[in-house]
Amino acid sequence: MIKKRKALKEAVEEFLGEIKHRTKREKIEVLDSCNRVLLEDVKAKLTMPPFDRAAMDGYAVKAEDTFGVDESNPSLLRVVGEVETGEEAKVRVERGEAVRISTGAMMPEGANAVVMVEYTNERDGYVEIYRSVAPGENVSKKGEDFFSGKVILKTGNVIQPFDVGYLLSAGVRKVEVSGKAKVSIASTGNEVFDVLKPSKGKIPDSNRPNIISHLKSWCDLLDLGIVRDSKKEMSKAFEKALSSDVIVFTGATSAGKKDYMPEILKEYGELLVHGVAIKPGMPIALGIVDGKPVILLPGSPVACMITFKLFVIPAIWKVQNTEVVAYPNEVIKAELSRRVPSTAGTKTFARVKLKKLDKYVAYPVMTSGSGILSSLSNVHGIVEVPESLEGFEAGEVVEVKLTRHLVKSELRW
Amino acid sequence: MIKKRKALKEAVEEFLGEIKHRTKREKIEVLDSCNRVLLEDVKAKLTMPPFDRAAMDGYAVKAEDTFGVDESNPSLLRVVGEVETGEEAKVRVERGEAVRISTGAMMPEGANAVVMVEYTNERDGYVEIYRSVAPGENVSKKGEDFFSGKVILKTGNVIQPFDVGYLLSAGVRKVEVSGKAKVSIASTGNEVFDVLKPSKGKIPDSNRPNIISHLKSWCDLLDLGIVRDSKKEMSKAFEKALSSDVIVFTGATSAGKKDYMPEILKEYGELLVHGVAIKPGMPIALGIVDGKPVILLPGSPVACMITFKLFVIPAIWKVQNTEVVAYPNEVIKAELSRRVPSTAGTKTFARVKLKKLDKYVAYPVMTSGSGILSSLSNVHGIVEVPESLEGFEAGEVVEVKLTRHLVKSELRW
Repeated sequence: MIKKRKALKEAVEEFLGEIKHRTKREKIEVLDSCNRVLLEDVKAKLTMPPFDRAAMDGYAVKAEDTFGVDESNPSLLRVVGEVETGEEAKVRVERGEAVRISTGAMMPEGANAVVMVEYTNERDGYVEIYRSVAPGENVSKKGEDFFSGKVILKTGNVIQPFDVGYLLSAGVRKVEVSGKAKVSIASTGNEVFDVLKPSKGKIPDSNRPNIISHLKSWCDLLDLGIVRDSKKEMSKAFEKALSSDVIVFTGATSAGKKDYMPEILKEYGELLVHGVAIKPGMPIALGIVDGKPVILLPGSPVACMITFKLFVIPAIWKVQNTEVVAYPNEVIKAELSRRVPSTAGTKTFARVKLKKLDKYVAYPVMTSGSGILSSLSNVHGIVEVPESLEGFEAGEVVEVKLTRHLVKSELRW
Repeated sequence: MIKKRKALKEAVEEFLGEIKHRTKREKIEVLDSCNRVLLEDVKAKLTMPPFDRAAMDGYAVKAEDTFGVDESNPSLLRVVGEVETGEEAKVRVERGEAVRISTGAMMPEGANAVVMVEYTNERDGYVEIYRSVAPGENVSKKGEDFFSGKVILKTGNVIQPFDVGYLLSAGVRKVEVSGKAKVSIASTGNEVFDVLKPSKGKIPDSNRPNIISHLKSWCDLLDLGIVRDSKKEMSKAFEKALSSDVIVFTGATSAGKKDYMPEILKEYGELLVHGVAIKPGMPIALGIVDGKPVILLPGSPVACMITFKLFVIPAIWKVQNTEVVAYPNEVIKAELSRRVPSTAGTKTFARVKLKKLDKYVAYPVMTSGSGILSSLSNVHGIVEVPESLEGFEAGEVVEVKLTRHLVKSELRW
């Protein structure tokens, strides 16, 4: 029988704290690595950008040649060539000269800034410059994204689709990840029947097909079918289940049931939690055998599905050596570390990294532009600034929509 | 060149409004139907529960035998038998009699209520009843979940893992769904190289592998590789892409680029939107050829990924004949139609249906317990009541965490 009910947070923490890393490591192609847990700090094999490049369309110049100019007092530079994106820059810029350049193109030697095309006017081989630029302005520096040898994605992260292009762009073809978790699933009870084999007077077992549908794309499943309410049958099933990394039984715990499964669990390992203060799902039982999680889910379909998400899913991540705190699309409320500017009438999607102190803090990522690959993979979510605002202030609490699994190890950077 | 920028909401609505249903219908096994769009109203082939059943452990009685009783004045009933879950009830209850019964077990003839075991005391063949029950109390009525012939899941829904057990429990083995959408993807530009074939002086194309990784598990992909900046090459690629349902080009639209792709698009169909007031992602272009969506994504990786999620994903659902408004795990703020009660110290997960009037309204689902299958599949999300509260009041604005894709057709029920 269930004596006391643990608070949800406490139950989850105690349970996850006892689960050990169970899966094997494997080296697989980055192209096949989506939704796998990364088990190494991945280092870039290339430098990105591999050279200084223009961040805008315009003219590559020596910044000194633009100092003090304005519309009424432009500087006039001789156009000595052009660099298109994707080609090597073979021309050189001297004082008094400019080179026509496209976004992403290699900066020519001698130039240290780009004047945007909007502030120029070219004719007869010369270009008028109407606005001054500082050295480095509108230039994306070599290695701004990452230098060869830098850690670009850390162990414990769940690889997302947009990490694939990032890793490949950094010259990484294979990554060390966790093998899939092996999960065993059985439903229990004399009252249920296999939905594929109807039986009169009994209740259809919807839980097993639900759970199998949830897991089959990303786990190795061991389906133990329906186990009848007898200690012998249940012990046999439990023995079989021990070959897996995560052991799940449904309908094996409730106020009304004979406590066979919790008893069997205690023979092999430890019953950590029996009864959690949640509704539905109160009778949930959680145990550990040899660092391996055992979850006895209630049989009622709604209670089963809710406790499955609260306890089974995090356990599956934990045996793969990561602790997932929140999932993509979920919203985390966080305090902004600094202002996020925006333009009224434009909806801005600002990328942020999260850190957890006593509360969540969101650090907006500053880059020279949306071409920085690392700013997709090395952030945790997006803050949307609506069209009606000119930004959010530092210290404001904003909603961060997660773009990746938020893992505990990431919150400690 | 881009003349005016549309507001995001307006751009999405105009674009989706022009997209036609493109995919074929197919009849597939429910077990293989996860993440597919349902293209029929599915009817139950069975009644659930198939008989009146006990919703609690206790004693099946005639309610009349308990009227007016309390601790100091119990009624005494003769125990004439027992019904266990999963077996047929062969005993009959008369006035002055009771039958021991387990949760989920078939109600014996003659009985019309169940007294919870906590309010009873059995000895020597008789049971003392300390609390009165109303007729129907603690009984789950035949067909409470669904009657045979009732529509249990509506067209336009995206099938979730927990729908699988529900449909199978209702005797449904096959469902009519949308075939997978065929999506063509090409990157464009002289400046990019295929990440699997590095090339000096150029920029790695991270966008194509990112998008392919996003889609490969649920779409049929037509990978057209990298297309160079020439009208001839691009026209050729566009012609090939026309065999797919959704056409995606990356790097084919920007302020600096020659407008080949928008021009080609105009030759075959209509350019609906060129430039949206978002940052990053402003240069996005959206078009329609023959009811088929064409999306020209910006080439910058961050802008590309953000506009991919804003425009490509909804377009892929729309060609499958559904309009997804929000995704699982996302949060919708909604006004409660009525009070959600909870017990202090217990975390309650209340299931709600959503309706959109001028704002979202959340309708809490009332059932006799967590055993009702339809209350998993026929709700849109969960409202969590924290342990510190005794519930939420009617009219309060709460956060609903979606448990399934929220589709437009569902909001009109």
